[in-house]
Amino acid sequence: MRTLKVALLGCGVVGTEVARIMTTDAADLAARIGAPVELAGVAVRRANRPRPGIPDHLITTDAAELVKRGDIDVVIEVIGGIEPARSLILSAFDNGASVVSANKALLAADGAALHGAAAKAGVDLYYEAAVAGAIPLIRPLRESLAGDKVNRVLGIVNGTTNFILDKMDSTGAGYSEALEEATALGYAEADPTADVEGFDAAAKAAILAGIAFHSRVTAENVFREGITEVTAADIASAKAMNSVVKLLAICERSTAADGTESVTARVHPAMIPLTHPLANVRGAYNAVFVEADAAGQLMFYGPGAGGAPTASAVLGDLVAVCRNKLGGATGPGESAYAQLTVNPMDDVVTRYHVSLDVADKAGVLAQVATVFAEHGVSIDTVRQQGREGDASLVVVTHRATDAALSATVSELRTLDNVRGVASIMRVEGE
Amino acid sequence: MRTLKVALLGCGVVGTEVARIMTTDAADLAARIGAPVELAGVAVRRANRPRPGIPDHLITTDAAELVKRGDIDVVIEVIGGIEPARSLILSAFDNGASVVSANKALLAADGAALHGAAAKAGVDLYYEAAVAGAIPLIRPLRESLAGDKVNRVLGIVNGTTNFILDKMDSTGAGYSEALEEATALGYAEADPTADVEGFDAAAKAAILAGIAFHSRVTAENVFREGITEVTAADIASAKAMNSVVKLLAICERSTAADGTESVTARVHPAMIPLTHPLANVRGAYNAVFVEADAAGQLMFYGPGAGGAPTASAVLGDLVAVCRNKLGGATGPGESAYAQLTVNPMDDVVTRYHVSLDVADKAGVLAQVATVFAEHGVSIDTVRQQGREGDASLVVVTHRATDAALSATVSELRTLDNVRGVASIMRVEGE
Repeated sequence: MRTLKVALLGCGVVGTEVARIMTTDAADLAARIGAPVELAGVAVRRANRPRPGIPDHLITTDAAELVKRGDIDVVIEVIGGIEPARSLILSAFDNGASVVSANKALLAADGAALHGAAAKAGVDLYYEAAVAGAIPLIRPLRESLAGDKVNRVLGIVNGTTNFILDKMDSTGAGYSEALEEATALGYAEADPTADVEGFDAAAKAAILAGIAFHSRVTAENVFREGITEVTAADIASAKAMNSVVKLLAICERSTAADGTESVTARVHPAMIPLTHPLANVRGAYNAVFVEADAAGQLMFYGPGAGGAPTASAVLGDLVAVCRNKLGGATGPGESAYAQLTVNPMDDVVTRYHVSLDVADKAGVLAQVATVFAEHGVSIDTVRQQGREGDASLVVVTHRATDAALSATVSELRTLDNVRGVASIMRVEGE
Repeated sequence: MRTLKVALLGCGVVGTEVARIMTTDAADLAARIGAPVELAGVAVRRANRPRPGIPDHLITTDAAELVKRGDIDVVIEVIGGIEPARSLILSAFDNGASVVSANKALLAADGAALHGAAAKAGVDLYYEAAVAGAIPLIRPLRESLAGDKVNRVLGIVNGTTNFILDKMDSTGAGYSEALEEATALGYAEADPTADVEGFDAAAKAAILAGIAFHSRVTAENVFREGITEVTAADIASAKAMNSVVKLLAICERSTAADGTESVTARVHPAMIPLTHPLANVRGAYNAVFVEADAAGQLMFYGPGAGGAPTASAVLGDLVAVCRNKLGGATGPGESAYAQLTVNPMDDVVTRYHVSLDVADKAGVLAQVATVFAEHGVSIDTVRQQGREGDASLVVVTHRATDAALSATVSELRTLDNVRGVASIMRVEGE
């Protein structure tokens, strides 16, 4: 029985775990695949670091050479980022290797081209680890729900921002203070931009939307708003509504009056009621709801990141692509036949929590309410608080389009009696 | 491009939904499979019932003839029960058809033989719908976690009993009263035995344990205790401990001092703390925790039964086996290489809530505590309540084997001062 050869690109937190498990659990992997798998090479940036458990002769700094070697059956890419990851993956396909990747940024930017190249080469491209760590999401969406119609995917897919928002909620800390603590504890990277500005979550939303709706969705199609502008006051407002603030990724299908279907994908902070199961997702955990016509509402929950959980997802994919190789088959590739249009944020319909600083005068509420009404944004509740000359108005709306809300807010800003728009936050989960 | 022909065996709640979706979503299914699928025949028990949406000429009462027709690519079996389902599935394999089944009882009784027959015939046997309705569990365990080591599967996998226990908890009703309501509302069948005695959950536990531990586990290997003996007093005792009573299916791996691994599988009512996520699984919903070495703790949640959710799982499998057919491959079959021994209930280690009726005399507690100590069962808490001559003692233990607890209880029954053992319930989820 032939041994399958695996090249590992990247040996950071995830790569190290993948190599470790491939060694310690070799017998189990062989039994599950139906043939032994061998770590045939490990491409790293710096060769001179100690890498316990990985024989020196496997280490190389020449990743390009490794994937071109000709005897590699599967390439595991855990480098991250667009280049050189993309070129290496394309080269792997050219050389007949299947690829297992954890690279959300690359898949979200260029998934269609990569899937096309894999299909042309007759090999697999699997990437369960790219979204929500160990939580099976890609496979359930792509395979378990393949006979159903997914209407909505909604969840917490970034642990760093969830940790920060959780801290702000439990301690009353501001954003900067909570970020500092997250950095000190290793939950946030030295440059936290990708997480706190929502790029990471948006990439995951693009991948999930593409698979769920059988359409092409890239990170650029995803509306993105991070958590850097979330204030302690926002968190307190949420508390006053028995809610919490979470960074949500939301992918939705909608149907126009004429039956035309389209989708939206967005990432932004939102208030959700404490009674919603997502409100109780703590720290670095992830949780994703999937709503489908026949299945109803499903939830998937687990550790969303980290070396071992991500390695678990990578190795599950490794077993699958190895089995496919041995069987002379490939797994499901890109499914984008539905070609649904991805609508801009303007078309999204949701509820809003708008906090205004207003003059403490008679008639201000009437004036503000008129502006909402003129733009067709129906008000659910208003809370008015006077503070010696100043006052604040907190308006929670019924469902309206983002465009209507934006137009409302623009006009509110022009009113003399409105001194400022303190915050606007979407309200989800009801 | 050739059309794949599907025979549907059984046209009850699930079968009707499968046929309906196959018709209304035919274009989507074709796009996802890569070829059209056609409902080529529907075997029913009574031909003269109205079956809206299913052309008359497809209906037959001769299931055996249908699977032998020779042109069937996939047989969907949603009849349930052991026979004639087993013979029909084996005949389908003999005739080159892959099978998608929702039949937990059959898979739990005879999964190994069926998998063997499928492998011999070079076709697929898929059964995501057999466990927890639409919730993807079989595929995540069999594929997503194929590179990981699963140590524990714990969950609520029977909606009927969950509904009944939920009712007892929220209304204070006794078992019989809650069962009556469940029956009236259609949550319990006319003969509820399979659900309330735990047979249904035990079959699911056997299937999950077999896949999770890569070993053969049948329903007979699963310790089974239903909910018929759960009293309003038990529910009240649970409440007093900030807990609820749930019927749990628990499959665990354990490692002996010499490194030998073995597993246990069991279904029984247990008290779990209100803070545990399973405590909030209401009504007919199911939820399952999976703990694995690298992945950590995952949770899967959703509707555990019903026509549409079960059909969703069936159709996901249909797409997969059709893709395999077209690709000339088969998906993962039985994986039982680990051949772990399934240990009896005696070896299970857990905590216990024991309620005793005792004489209200000095020294009784000391006497009872001595019996626990002599059997090596360490006591966590004791609550003593006197009631004019009578008293009750509620003992919650630390972790002990079921054998040790049983021996303890047997000896307690022999004590003059112990008038009766009011209830014994396991305590989980801490």
